[in-house]
Amino acid sequence: MNEAAQTLDGWYALHDFRSMDWPAWKALSEEERTAATNEFLAYLEEMDAVHAAGTGTHAFYTIIGQKADFMLMVLRPTMDELQKLEARFNKLTIAAFTIPTYSYVSVVELSNYLAGESNEDPYQNPHVRARLYPELPRSQYVCFYPMDKRREGNDNWYMLNMDDRKAMMRSHGMIGRGYAGKVKQIITGSVGFDDYEWGVTLFSDDVLQFKKLVYEMRFDEVSARYGEFGQFFVGTLLDGDTRREFFAV
Amino acid sequence: MNEAAQTLDGWYALHDFRSMDWPAWKALSEEERTAATNEFLAYLEEMDAVHAAGTGTHAFYTIIGQKADFMLMVLRPTMDELQKLEARFNKLTIAAFTIPTYSYVSVVELSNYLAGESNEDPYQNPHVRARLYPELPRSQYVCFYPMDKRREGNDNWYMLNMDDRKAMMRSHGMIGRGYAGKVKQIITGSVGFDDYEWGVTLFSDDVLQFKKLVYEMRFDEVSARYGEFGQFFVGTLLDGDTRREFFAV
Amino acid sequence: MNEAAQTLDGWYALHDFRSMDWPAWKALSEEERTAATNEFLAYLEEMDAVHAAGTGTHAFYTIIGQKADFMLMVLRPTMDELQKLEARFNKLTIAAFTIPTYSYVSVVELSNYLAGESNEDPYQNPHVRARLYPELPRSQYVCFYPMDKRREGNDNWYMLNMDDRKAMMRSHGMIGRGYAGKVKQIITGSVGFDDYEWGVTLFSDDVLQFKKLVYEMRFDEVSARYGEFGQFFVGTLLDGDTRREFFAV
Amino acid sequence: MNEAAQTLDGWYALHDFRSMDWPAWKALSEEERTAATNEFLAYLEEMDAVHAAGTGTHAFYTIIGQKADFMLMVLRPTMDELQKLEARFNKLTIAAFTIPTYSYVSVVELSNYLAGESNEDPYQNPHVRARLYPELPRSQYVCFYPMDKRREGNDNWYMLNMDDRKAMMRSHGMIGRGYAGKVKQIITGSVGFDDYEWGVTLFSDDVLQFKKLVYEMRFDEVSARYGEFGQFFVGTLLDGDTRREFFAV
Amino acid sequence: MNEAAQTLDGWYALHDFRSMDWPAWKALSEEERTAATNEFLAYLEEMDAVHAAGTGTHAFYTIIGQKADFMLMVLRPTMDELQKLEARFNKLTIAAFTIPTYSYVSVVELSNYLAGESNEDPYQNPHVRARLYPELPRSQYVCFYPMDKRREGNDNWYMLNMDDRKAMMRSHGMIGRGYAGKVKQIITGSVGFDDYEWGVTLFSDDVLQFKKLVYEMRFDEVSARYGEFGQFFVGTLLDGDTRREFFAV
Repeated sequence: MNEAAQTLDGWYALHDFRSMDWPAWKALSEEERTAATNEFLAYLEEMDAVHAAGTGTHAFYTIIGQKADFMLMVLRPTMDELQKLEARFNKLTIAAFTIPTYSYVSVVELSNYLAGESNEDPYQNPHVRARLYPELPRSQYVCFYPMDKRREGNDNWYMLNMDDRKAMMRSHGMIGRGYAGKVKQIITGSVGFDDYEWGVTLFSDDVLQFKKLVYEMRFDEVSARYGEFGQFFVGTLLDGDTRREFFAV
Repeated sequence: MNEAAQTLDGWYALHDFRSMDWPAWKALSEEERTAATNEFLAYLEEMDAVHAAGTGTHAFYTIIGQKADFMLMVLRPTMDELQKLEARFNKLTIAAFTIPTYSYVSVVELSNYLAGESNEDPYQNPHVRARLYPELPRSQYVCFYPMDKRREGNDNWYMLNMDDRKAMMRSHGMIGRGYAGKVKQIITGSVGFDDYEWGVTLFSDDVLQFKKLVYEMRFDEVSARYGEFGQFFVGTLLDGDTRREFFAV
Repeated sequence: MNEAAQTLDGWYALHDFRSMDWPAWKALSEEERTAATNEFLAYLEEMDAVHAAGTGTHAFYTIIGQKADFMLMVLRPTMDELQKLEARFNKLTIAAFTIPTYSYVSVVELSNYLAGESNEDPYQNPHVRARLYPELPRSQYVCFYPMDKRREGNDNWYMLNMDDRKAMMRSHGMIGRGYAGKVKQIITGSVGFDDYEWGVTLFSDDVLQFKKLVYEMRFDEVSARYGEFGQFFVGTLLDGDTRREFFAV
Repeated sequence: MNEAAQTLDGWYALHDFRSMDWPAWKALSEEERTAATNEFLAYLEEMDAVHAAGTGTHAFYTIIGQKADFMLMVLRPTMDELQKLEARFNKLTIAAFTIPTYSYVSVVELSNYLAGESNEDPYQNPHVRARLYPELPRSQYVCFYPMDKRREGNDNWYMLNMDDRKAMMRSHGMIGRGYAGKVKQIITGSVGFDDYEWGVTLFSDDVLQFKKLVYEMRFDEVSARYGEFGQFFVGTLLDGDTRREFFAV
Repeated sequence: MNEAAQTLDGWYALHDFRSMDWPAWKALSEEERTAATNEFLAYLEEMDAVHAAGTGTHAFYTIIGQKADFMLMVLRPTMDELQKLEARFNKLTIAAFTIPTYSYVSVVELSNYLAGESNEDPYQNPHVRARLYPELPRSQYVCFYPMDKRREGNDNWYMLNMDDRKAMMRSHGMIGRGYAGKVKQIITGSVGFDDYEWGVTLFSDDVLQFKKLVYEMRFDEVSARYGEFGQFFVGTLLDGDTRREFFAV
C-alpha cells in the first residue's frame, strides 16, 4: 500500500442548494408570504447567533443561473446538528416553496501535504483551529464546486508516492497563496460522505478572482492531470435587507 | 478463462432510500398523520421482532442532504420476503408521502480471497454464519455506497490472476482490520441483481471513521487502481423515540 | 472490413418495466380498482392463450427495488404486433396508474459463433426453432440486463478477427452450459433497435444462480475485457393468484 | 490543420419525438378528442400537400417502447420554416397531451468522401438534388439514431488524413450498397446544430434489415473504431387510417 | 507549473434557456395573456434601452427542437446586475409559464494566445474594448455551445507548453477569420463560474455557416484532439413584431 495522506478534520458542513417555486410562492397571500419569510429569517437569525458565538458558522447566498436560487452552507461541530437543522428547515413553511437542486455533505479538512513535522497536538494550535473551525466571511461573492483526484491509466493520483504528491500540492498551494487577501478558500473533505472527494468553497469581493484562481490552477499539474471537477456554482451575498428583498415579490 | 472468485452468500438485502414529501405530509390533519405514523411504526416494530428473533435484520437511518430523507435496509433469507416487504411498504399510507430516490438489491457475501483451505462446510461454521446472517448494529451513523471493480485498459481487475487478486485483497483487508471495533462493515454482492457489483454498508458511533477508512483504502492499489464508486450516503440512527420525532411536524 | 457475425433471428421482444402509482391506485374506489384489475388480467389472459397456442410467449414478473414494480416481457412474430400490444396496454385503465421506467426492444437471436457448418436451412431445424421461438418458462425468478461488446482502445471486440471471437465465445458458452438445468437464458439482439446491442433475460428457480452465473462469466475474457453492462433488474413471478394479489391494496 | 471534409447541404430537418399523456387524453370527452385529432390531422394533411408538391417532405411513425409514442420528422428548405412548424404544433390542442421526449435538428448532407472530381455545380446535378431534397418514403418501418465520429486517444477520426478517411468511408459505403432496395438511408448533418454530428434515418419494409445493416457495419473499421452512437428509435408507419386509429381510445 | 494563459475579461453573461408551458399559457384568458406578454415585452424594452445606450447588451432568440423554446442572453458590467435581472424575470407573470431548461454563467473573454506584446493597457485599446463590451448583433440566427479543453491521457491541453498552445490557437483563429463577415463569434469564459470552461455564441444571417465553421474547426488539432463539447442550441431571432407573435396563441 501507498502512504495515505493524513487529515485534520474540523466542523461538519452541509451545502444546501434550492430553487424557489416562484409561481406557488407568488400565489400566497401577502400575509402568508410575510409570515413564511419571517419564520425563515428567524431560522437564519438563530444561525447568525451561533455564528456570532463562534460555535458554528454559515453562509447564505443567491446562485446565478438555473442551478439554484440560493445556497445555505452550514458548519457545525457534529453531523447530528446538521441533520437536525436540515430536518427543521424541511418543516418550515417556506420549504414547501423550495425545490432541492443539489446538496453536499463534507467536513472541513486540512491535509498533511503542506504540514511541517511537529510534536504538538495540531488540534491545540490556534492557527490550525482557526482553519478547522472557521468563521465564514460575508464577502460579496461565493463559488462552490466538488472535485476528485483522478485515478485513470497513467494519471492516477492515488498511485503516486507521498513525496511526489507533496511536491505537487506545494506548487498548487503557491498559486493559492498568490490570491491571499483576494480569495478565501475553505476545503471540505467528503470521502465516505458524498460523491466527490472534496468540496471547494471560495469567497471574494471580486467575482473575477474565482475565474483567475481556478484557471491559473488548471495549468498546474495537480489540476491539469489529476483534477476532476463537478458542477460549479456562483452567487452573491444575501445579508441584512437583501434577505427579505430576495423573497419579496 | 481466469480463475473466478468463489463466494458464500447469506441473507438477501434491500436498501430503500426515500425522501419525504413534507408539504403533503404537513397538509394532513394531525390525526391522519398520527395514524399514518403509527401504521408505519407498527410495520417497523414487526421488523424489530424479526431482528430480535434473529430470523432477519434491518437498519433505519436518516440520510443527510438531499439524496434522501431516510434509508430502510432490510435483510431476509429469501428474495421473495424482500419483495413482499417492499409491496407492503408501498401500500402503507405513509408511502404516498415518500419519494423513492435510490434502492439497492444485493445479498450478504463473503469471498474466498481471504479464506483459508478447509474441508468443513463453511455454512456450518459459526463464525461464517455470524457474518452471512448478521445482526445489524444500532450504531449512531451509517454509510452506504455501491462499487465495482474496474475493467479498463491496463486496470482490469477481472484479468488479473487469482494470486494477484488475493494478495491485493489481503492488503486491503489489513486496512479494514485497523478499524476493528470502530467500524462494522457489511459487504453485499449485487452482480446480476443491481447496477454495481457490491454494496458496502458501514456502521460506526464516530462518523469521521467512515471518512478515515475510505480515504485510507483509496491509497491501496485495490481501490486506487481498481475501485469504481457510486453515490455515497451518510446518516444518523432512527431508533426509539427519534423515529416518531422524525415524522412529527 | 472484418468478418461480421451472422445471426438467426426469431420472435421480436418488448420488455416493458413500469412502476405503480400506488397512491392514485389506492385512491380509486374498490369497484373501480377491481374493474381496472379485471381488464388488465383479461389482457394478460389473452396473452396466456397465445402462449398456450405457441404463437407467441410472454413473462410477467415483479421487479425488486425502485427501478420498477413489474416487468411485462412479450415475444411476437412481428414488430407490428408488439406495437399494437403496447398501444392496447396504454389505453387500458390501469395504464394511467403506471409510470414507465424502462423498456427494451429486441429480437431473439442466435449467432453463428457457436454454430457448426451445415447445408440445411437452420430455420427448419427443430432445435434452432425451439430457441428462436421459445416458450418462456414460469420460473420463480427473472433477471434482465442489456449489454454491449466494448470498442475502446485495445479492447475493441469488433476489430478482433472471427477466429478469436469464436474461440472466446466458445469458452463463454462453456460457462453457460455449466448452469444448464439451473438457469434458462434468452439472448435478444437489439442493434438498430435499442441503445445496447443485446438484452439478456435469465430465468431460474434459484435466484442466487443469476449472481453465480454472471459473476463467473465476468472473469472470462469476453466479459472481463469486452463486456459493457447496462442496468440489472431482478424479480419474482406473477402468476395465477399472485397477479391479482399484487394489485390488491 | 488536417484537410476538412466538404459537404453538400440540402433541406433542414427536425425529428420530433413525443409520448402521449394517455390518461389526460382519455379524460377528454369524445367530442373534444375528435376535435383535437381532426385539428392535428389537418396539420399533417397540410404537410402531405407540401410533400406531394415536392417543396418539403416528412415522415410520421409510432415509436416502439417507452422512448416515445410517435416521431414526426419534417424536412424544409429553411430553418425558419421548421421553427414555424414547431411553434404551430406547440399551439395545437393535441400538443398539451404530448410529452416531448427527444428531438434532433440537422440538415440533409452529402459528404465529398464518396464524390468524384467534377467541374459542374453539384447543386445542379439531378442525382445530387434527389438526395439533398429527398422524398421520404412511406415504408412500414423507420429507425433513427444520432452518431459521432470518435476522437479518443489513438482512435481519433479527425486526426486521420483525408485519404485514410476516404478509403474507410468507401468500404463503409459498400456495405450500405449491399442493402440497396431493402433500406433507404437519409444522412443529416448536425455539427453546430445538435449534440451529435450526424443523424441517421433508415426506412425499410423489413424491420430486420435495420439490425442486419447496423450490425454488419459495426464490424467495419469506420464504426468499430470511430463510431459513437446515441439512442436508437424504431417504429411503424402512421399513414391513412392508422393515424386516426392511433389516437382513438 | 506550466505557463498559464492570461485573459482580458469584459461584461458578465447569463444565457437563460426556457421552454414555454404552452398548455397553461393557453389556459389563460386572452386578457391575462396579453397583460403578461406586455409586462415581459416591457422588461425586454428596458433591455433594448440599455443596449441602445451601450451600457449592456442582450440577444433574444427562439430555440429549435425540444431543448428550449427561447434563449435570453444578457451581458452586463457586473454579476450583481445579472442576478438582479434574473430575480426580476423570475417574478414576472410570464415566468410561471416557463420551464428552465439550461443556463450558462460566464464573462466575455479574450485570451493572450493571439495577442502581440504591448506596453499599453489593453483595457484602454478601443479594438479590445469593442470586443470585451460588444454590441450583440441582431442576426437572423444564433448558435450556442459550451466547451472544455480536454485533459485526458496524451491529449492534455493544460500540460502543453505555451508555445504549442499558441501555435495551435493561431491556426484555429485562421479558420475563424475565414468566416469574417459571415459569422460573429463571442467567446465567454466560465472557469469557476459554470460547468464548462467556455461558452461560444455565434451569430449569422446564414444558419449553414454555423455548421461549416464548427465542422471545419473539428479537423483542426485544437478541436480534434483537445475539444470537448456540451449541448448545441440553434435558433432564430425574436425582434420587433416576432416577439409578440411568438407568445400569441
